Amino acid sequence: MTDSESEGSLVLAVDCMGGDHGPQVTLPAIEAFLRRRPGVSVLAVGQPEALEAEVARLRRRFGGRIELAPASQVVGMDEAPTSAMRNKKDSSLRVAIEQIKAGRAQAAVSAGNTGALMSIARFVLKTLPGIDRPAIATVLPARGSRVWVLDLGANVDCTAEHLRQFGIMGSLLVSAVEQVERPRVGLLNIGTEDIKGNQVVREAAALLRTTDLNFVGNVEDIYSGQADVVVCDGFVGNVALKTTEGLAQMLALILREEFNRNLLTRLMGLAAYPVLKHFKARVDPRRYNGAVLVGLRGVVVKSHGGADAYAFGQALDRAAEAAAHRLVERIEQKMAGAWPRAASPVTEVSSS
Amino acid sequence: MTDSESEGSLVLAVDCMGGDHGPQVTLPAIEAFLRRRPGVSVLAVGQPEALEAEVARLRRRFGGRIELAPASQVVGMDEAPTSAMRNKKDSSLRVAIEQIKAGRAQAAVSAGNTGALMSIARFVLKTLPGIDRPAIATVLPARGSRVWVLDLGANVDCTAEHLRQFGIMGSLLVSAVEQVERPRVGLLNIGTEDIKGNQVVREAAALLRTTDLNFVGNVEDIYSGQADVVVCDGFVGNVALKTTEGLAQMLALILREEFNRNLLTRLMGLAAYPVLKHFKARVDPRRYNGAVLVGLRGVVVKSHGGADAYAFGQALDRAAEAAAHRLVERIEQKMAGAWPRAASPVTEVSSS
Repeated sequence: MTDSESEGSLVLAVDCMGGDHGPQVTLPAIEAFLRRRPGVSVLAVGQPEALEAEVARLRRRFGGRIELAPASQVVGMDEAPTSAMRNKKDSSLRVAIEQIKAGRAQAAVSAGNTGALMSIARFVLKTLPGIDRPAIATVLPARGSRVWVLDLGANVDCTAEHLRQFGIMGSLLVSAVEQVERPRVGLLNIGTEDIKGNQVVREAAALLRTTDLNFVGNVEDIYSGQADVVVCDGFVGNVALKTTEGLAQMLALILREEFNRNLLTRLMGLAAYPVLKHFKARVDPRRYNGAVLVGLRGVVVKSHGGADAYAFGQALDRAAEAAAHRLVERIEQKMAGAWPRAASPVTEVSSS
Repeated sequence: MTDSESEGSLVLAVDCMGGDHGPQVTLPAIEAFLRRRPGVSVLAVGQPEALEAEVARLRRRFGGRIELAPASQVVGMDEAPTSAMRNKKDSSLRVAIEQIKAGRAQAAVSAGNTGALMSIARFVLKTLPGIDRPAIATVLPARGSRVWVLDLGANVDCTAEHLRQFGIMGSLLVSAVEQVERPRVGLLNIGTEDIKGNQVVREAAALLRTTDLNFVGNVEDIYSGQADVVVCDGFVGNVALKTTEGLAQMLALILREEFNRNLLTRLMGLAAYPVLKHFKARVDPRRYNGAVLVGLRGVVVKSHGGADAYAFGQALDRAAEAAAHRLVERIEQKMAGAWPRAASPVTEVSSS
C-alpha cells in the first residue's frame, strides 16, 4: 500500500517515550515501518539516553531515514494537560508536534496522554481556519466494512455547527486515508426519522443537508455498515467507544470461561481453535489503532497507550497515509471554499 | 422465585395485541406465567375475536386467574405517539394501562410501540410527585453480574436534577425487583475523575453526592460490574444500548461466517457446539427483556417488539416483581420524604 509518489519526502515525528511501554514498543514499530515504507523518514523524539543506541543501530540500516530529535522530558500518562503544557515544554510529546510546526515533519504520532496531546497540538499547531474545534476520529470494524467515528471525546459540549464541521472533516479524512471519493456521512442519532434526537442533533442534520457531503441521514447503529463516517458529540462518541470496548472484553471473558469450564470444553476449544483464532484476528482492536486529531495545521495521530509494536505500527501507517494524501490541505481548501458557514456565536477566522 | 406473600392479589394487565407477533407470542407467554406464578392473575387485553377462544381455554385451566379485557383497536408499531393518543383511545395498549388507573391491575406489560406506551402511560397514570420525567430502565449483563441502566431514551435533553431523580428511581427499582439493599449507583461519564464530562454530568455527580444513595461516582464502562445502576441521559443511554446490540449482532455474524467458511470449519463448529450454545445462553438478550417505565403512578413494562414467548415471559416476571415489591410506593415515599430537591426551574408538585 506504499505510495512512493506521494510519500516523496514524507517525515514522521514519533514520540518514542509515550505510552505504557515507551521505546520498547515504539522503536521496534519504527523499524518495521521503515522497512515497509521505503519513501518515509522518521524523527525519533525522546530522551537521548533511552534512544541513542537503538537509533544508531537503525541508522546503520536505514541511513538518513531515521534521526534522533532530543527531548529531555516525558509527559506522564495521568498528568493533567495544564501541567503538561506549563511544565513539560521539552517533552517528547511536545517536541514531536513542534517538528511539524518547524516544517521538519508532516505528521506526529504519540501513544501518550490524550488530553495533553490534544491541548499541546492545539496550542502549538493551531486550528485550521473555519474549524472551531479539532476532533478525534478513529476507525472501527463495521458490517462488511469499517466505519470512522468522530468526535471521540475532544469536545463534550457540541453545537450543531461543530457537528457539521466534524462531518466535513470526517469525509475528507476518509477520502485522504482510504481514497474513497464520496464517503457516506451519517449522524449518530437514536432513531432514523428527522424528528428524533435532541435539539443539537436535529439542527445538525439540517445543517449537514445543506453541505455537498454525501450525507445519508441518521444512523442508529455505528456497526451497521450504513455509513463510512459517523458524526457525534465527543461525549456520545466516547460512550459508544467505551461501551464497545467494555462489551467486547466481557464477551471475550465469558467465552474464555465457557471454554475453560472443564477438560471436555477445553478439548472443544482446541478443536475450534483455528476458527476462533481467525475470528479474533478479524476483530482485533490492534488493527484499528491510531486515532487522528483532525482540524489542526498538521497531522497528529494518537496511539492507544497500551499498544504493542504491531498496533503502534498501524498508527504510524495511518499518519503516513493522512500526510501523504494531504489531509490538512484538503480540509483547509474545503473550509476556505465552497461551504457556507452556519451562523454561530463563534468569531469567524479569516482563512489564510 | 415466586413470592406468594407479596403477590397476594396481584393482577397484571397484559396488552396481548402489541409487538411484532401479537397473541401468538403473548398468550403462550401468559400461560407459562400463570403456571409458574400461582399468586398472580392476568387481564388479557385486546380484540375479543383474536383472544376469546384461547382465553376460554386458559380459563378452564386457571379459572378466575385469567380474564379478557376487551379493546377494539391496536396501536401500530410505527404509529406516531400523538396519533396513538388521539385516535386510539380504545387500543389494547391504552386499555391495559387504564386497568392500573382503575385499580383493576397493579402493573401493565406491552410489546407495543415504545413512544406511544410512554406518552399514554404518562397521560393516563401521571408522573409521581417529585419526579419531573419518567425514565426507561433496563437490565443488561455485566461482568460477574448484571447492571440496570436508565434512561434509555425517554428523555433526550436532561438536566442534572433529572439525572439525580433517575439515580433515586434506579436505586429503588433494583431494591424492589432484586431485593438488593443499597444498590451501587454510578453515573455514566467519559472519565472517572470528577472534572471529566460535560456540564450536566458534572453537576449531576455533585447532586448525587448529596443524596443518601450508595453513589459510587463516575462509571466509564457499563459492563464493568462496578455498579448495580448506571444513570445517564436518554440520548446517551440509547446510543449505548444500540451500540451494544449492533456490536453483538456484528460479532455473532462474523463468528458465524468463520464457522461456515468450509467443511472443516463447520466440523470445528460442531465440535465446539455445546460450549458455543452455553455461551449464547449466558448472553442471550431474551433473558434481559422487559424495560421498566419508572416514575409513573403504576408499573409499566415494555417488552421488545420482536420478543418470543420466552422473552415476553421475562417482561411479565419483571412487572410482577416490581409490583409485588411495591416499586411505585417506594418511589413515592422516597420523593415525599428524605431528599432535598435540587433547585430547578420546574414547578414543585406537592406530594399527595
